[in-house]
Amino acid sequence: MRSVTEHAAAVLDLVAPLPAVDVPPHAALGHVLAEDLRAAEALPRWDNSAMDGYAVRAADVATAEPSAPVVLRVVADLAAGSGAEPHVEPGTAARIMTGAPVPPGADAVVPVEHTDGGTTTVRVDRAPRPGAHVRRAGEDVAVGDLVLAAGTELGPTHVAAAASVNAGLLRVHRRPRVVVVSTGSELVPAGSPLRRGTIPDSNSVLLAAAAESAGADVLRVGAVTDDVDELGSTLRQHAATADLVLTSGGVSVGAYDVVKALLTAWGGVEFVAVAMQPGKPQGAGRLPGGTPVLCLPGNPVSAHVSFEVFVRPVLARLRGLDARGGDALARRTTRAVVDDGWRTPQGREQYMPVRLRDEDGVLHASRAARGGSGSHLVAGLAGSDALAVVPADVDVVEPGTTLRILRTDL
Amino acid sequence: MRSVTEHAAAVLDLVAPLPAVDVPPHAALGHVLAEDLRAAEALPRWDNSAMDGYAVRAADVATAEPSAPVVLRVVADLAAGSGAEPHVEPGTAARIMTGAPVPPGADAVVPVEHTDGGTTTVRVDRAPRPGAHVRRAGEDVAVGDLVLAAGTELGPTHVAAAASVNAGLLRVHRRPRVVVVSTGSELVPAGSPLRRGTIPDSNSVLLAAAAESAGADVLRVGAVTDDVDELGSTLRQHAATADLVLTSGGVSVGAYDVVKALLTAWGGVEFVAVAMQPGKPQGAGRLPGGTPVLCLPGNPVSAHVSFEVFVRPVLARLRGLDARGGDALARRTTRAVVDDGWRTPQGREQYMPVRLRDEDGVLHASRAARGGSGSHLVAGLAGSDALAVVPADVDVVEPGTTLRILRTDL
Repeated sequence: MRSVTEHAAAVLDLVAPLPAVDVPPHAALGHVLAEDLRAAEALPRWDNSAMDGYAVRAADVATAEPSAPVVLRVVADLAAGSGAEPHVEPGTAARIMTGAPVPPGADAVVPVEHTDGGTTTVRVDRAPRPGAHVRRAGEDVAVGDLVLAAGTELGPTHVAAAASVNAGLLRVHRRPRVVVVSTGSELVPAGSPLRRGTIPDSNSVLLAAAAESAGADVLRVGAVTDDVDELGSTLRQHAATADLVLTSGGVSVGAYDVVKALLTAWGGVEFVAVAMQPGKPQGAGRLPGGTPVLCLPGNPVSAHVSFEVFVRPVLARLRGLDARGGDALARRTTRAVVDDGWRTPQGREQYMPVRLRDEDGVLHASRAARGGSGSHLVAGLAGSDALAVVPADVDVVEPGTTLRILRTDL
Repeated sequence: MRSVTEHAAAVLDLVAPLPAVDVPPHAALGHVLAEDLRAAEALPRWDNSAMDGYAVRAADVATAEPSAPVVLRVVADLAAGSGAEPHVEPGTAARIMTGAPVPPGADAVVPVEHTDGGTTTVRVDRAPRPGAHVRRAGEDVAVGDLVLAAGTELGPTHVAAAASVNAGLLRVHRRPRVVVVSTGSELVPAGSPLRRGTIPDSNSVLLAAAAESAGADVLRVGAVTDDVDELGSTLRQHAATADLVLTSGGVSVGAYDVVKALLTAWGGVEFVAVAMQPGKPQGAGRLPGGTPVLCLPGNPVSAHVSFEVFVRPVLARLRGLDARGGDALARRTTRAVVDDGWRTPQGREQYMPVRLRDEDGVLHASRAARGGSGSHLVAGLAGSDALAVVPADVDVVEPGTTLRILRTDL
């Protein structure tokens, strides 16, 4: 049997980061930066006011206090956005709004609250330190500073930072296009009448939603029957436009395991037993034409675990998330104290759906469903927010043990 | 000054959960369930096989072992999806695939690995327990069981669970429609040439992306100048189609604080000072016609903090996330040990952008930017993934202190 680590490496080898495209900051949310973004301009670009008030020469008002105010002549009114550059001579001040460039001659800003708010003359009641309430040019970002590193998954603050340094376009990796096909003659679309032996197709719903959550554009083909010709024509139809094809079901030792039968005949896909529970039967390789395909087992919990352990890292690499050489899964991996214990199969790494509880910053995990990792309990899965990873050589997890945790809720 | 808690309550009072709509499970990702989903049918619906193998009468093969196998006649071949109901008489077996209903008469499944895989007769090499590898009808979900509770934010496992119980449509809250307007005559779209005094509009990019991340459909109007007529016509144009309008800038005491001027004249919006740093000037109320509007300060870090503290809970309520009466922010709130210390303003609750580090399940926080919570440091903000909350009565945060943390990366 192949270890989980070996299979994960084999599937990652099937893909490389997708080509870069240029998008404006307001359309870049969720994309991954393909190259470092460095500041082409300083931020702020000019010394500017941090307050609404008056730009003054600090020396003019060094003695100001409520009982002995200093009166200055107001020579300009600088709104935010004003391009004016009035010179502030001794004895004068410029009314100034937050963000407006500090005019030549002035070296401090007196907040409006410390004045009478005058428009022709202004009474200053308190002495500012030289430099008070002036944001210095380049104080946030200097020209050439790294603003965002290649490999950053762009969230709201990232796209805002890019806009703030006046980036018109960002070089990001194209989003992966994923085609999802589930197989099984027993499958009907959810909401259809069920007859004996048929069940709703939940795997294509699960995998499509998971891939979408993981940053892919998804085409959910839905379920095809256990018919080699039908599966073959479906895969041929969609493979050319996909960066990755996901199938579920048909990979085991059954007489009708159509995915295994077809793709073994086509060649290019390897079907292996992986030392894990659930999720043992796995297929991985390429379709004719070269599109990578991952063939997941059909039991819903197996499909879920397979997605989290194998598919998510593949999508992360396609998206460019490992550009920095780090572990793209790092943010999803943590440790937690197990509250309940259970027996586990020896010789296979176990992935147990658990519910996490944060107790003052310390994570606790308990099993999400009575049945544990039993691979058909899809409804119980909905109560889980992580997978607890039990090493292959463990056969009993004792309460209080600390286990590695793969979060599935992030 | 109004406390943060008081202002948060006042803004929440402006909204109620949006009406429910029906969507199929495959289109429900990210929506919030408006009513409990209970199972209309049991899951599994029939006793079915957990393995590829042979459905047998356990008593027939109770003595089977490799040195003394038992041979049975194969009377049927049950693929997944088969509706056949052959009776398994003593001395016979039915070939059965994973998921196929167990036929009448049979009470155990022998995995194919424990047989010779025959199709007319089969040699059974090991005795199964009665009930072995049979999934019992209703074992996962019984009719009437709660599958998903109202208020659940539907992730991949939730929509899959809904599909698995054959739900054709889910009753979910409509997504909020949010209009984002930033104000300031100094603002130009990112990527435009800058002249003295102009800066790129990053707030509309920030707030639109944040609202989208928080589950809203967003119309980003972008920046309008500090002109009462322009702002007025923009708001009138978009208010009718919005569930929430967000503005940034123009809420302070400056002479050009256009949002405050216009909405004070229109009435229905209250402008207040909130005891927090950053984010002190806030406006909240209704536009003519009744659309809720939140007026955030224009400094980018203030806008970010205001979104996380006030807007996100409002969006959560609109989406139906507080239907269960719980704190919609609970998942985002945790505690962390502060690695570096800093001085803070007394009398105002401080929100310090921090970077989190998970050390074996214990969270540590350190300041994201040299300048700390200085409200103009938008580029530094991009390095943060949470806000550390310092109570109003603290003036020095010592290293090693445990603080409440509002995650902004989830």
